[in-house]
Amino acid sequence: MTAASEPVPEALYAALTDSVRRLVDVTIRSQAGVASLAAAKARIDDAADELSREPLADSFGIRPAPDGTSRAWGNVVMGLRNPFAPPLIVHHDADGRVWADVTLGAAYEGPPGHVHGGVCALLLDHILGATAHKPGQPAVTGTLTVRYKAGTPLGPLHAEARIDRVEGRKTFAVGHLATAGSVTVRAHGVFFHPHPVISDTTTP
Amino acid sequence: MTAASEPVPEALYAALTDSVRRLVDVTIRSQAGVASLAAAKARIDDAADELSREPLADSFGIRPAPDGTSRAWGNVVMGLRNPFAPPLIVHHDADGRVWADVTLGAAYEGPPGHVHGGVCALLLDHILGATAHKPGQPAVTGTLTVRYKAGTPLGPLHAEARIDRVEGRKTFAVGHLATAGSVTVRAHGVFFHPHPVISDTTTP
Repeated sequence: MTAASEPVPEALYAALTDSVRRLVDVTIRSQAGVASLAAAKARIDDAADELSREPLADSFGIRPAPDGTSRAWGNVVMGLRNPFAPPLIVHHDADGRVWADVTLGAAYEGPPGHVHGGVCALLLDHILGATAHKPGQPAVTGTLTVRYKAGTPLGPLHAEARIDRVEGRKTFAVGHLATAGSVTVRAHGVFFHPHPVISDTTTP
Repeated sequence: MTAASEPVPEALYAALTDSVRRLVDVTIRSQAGVASLAAAKARIDDAADELSREPLADSFGIRPAPDGTSRAWGNVVMGLRNPFAPPLIVHHDADGRVWADVTLGAAYEGPPGHVHGGVCALLLDHILGATAHKPGQPAVTGTLTVRYKAGTPLGPLHAEARIDRVEGRKTFAVGHLATAGSVTVRAHGVFFHPHPVISDTTTP
């Protein structure tokens, strides 16, 4: 029995990913000199080597959890194991409103000091899509329109969305991003549930 | 004179950032056990500590380069020092077409095996915006509409855009993402140059 057989606590994956998030931030903001940068790089390469023995052949995908739910831990917006994900913790209110509070740092920059417009679109795509989400049946985007009212400063942000209407398989959602003071970006989009995918070619 | 005073070669920043990109990828895909994950985390924390002495107070922004050009090295899409950036290397053809070839791995996942729809929007926002870019005068997004024709598999992708028309300060751009076989996402958007920002209050 090797150590690799011991179940990995979710908290360890979360802590590792948080460490990588911090590393990403300081990789951008570091003013260290050549020797420190080279030393840090060597440690990072060692860590990557340590993690690289027999990795998953592909991306994380959606995997079953022991409790019967599913895990999208590789997801770029909300994945517990994806350092790019802030991560967005999505709340579903009883009245159908979907929202998340998130703080974006230097790694999400576009214009100086501001969130990249495309990152605003990424967050809005995700939060609007979440209005159409059903357990085990994620929605995909048909069309997304994003209107930028003002620059979105790096820092704390609020994202929210609600369903405007449902027509057949299509969910029409609206939402926005806001700072403490005001709405900076509005969006509307159409989301739908794809027909079930037949992933096994022997299935009729 | 400390080592920190020695100018840091651009290639070292690029190599460090590439190392962090690889680390992000294996953080998601690792199947290592508890001991390896803990050992890797310790090395990552050491590396982050090493990089963290006197970091920039804020985000990277746009900084002057010795050759008179400017550097947006923290940019989330194209930044040389941002591990989240693939990075996108944007080409401007003489006929006005703007394009980039990029390969997206596990870190950009939404639906299993596929690029997150919001990441498609992020790339398209950036490449459409690049049609309106002028040296030292980046364009910002007014409106962006993204139409998803098919899922975009993780792997090699082509992004391109062109100007449809210009009306005053507004540039109307169109573009798409494609795999080797076909277009998966189309977009159109309006971009403009903000009024000049007076960043130095002593400047008239």
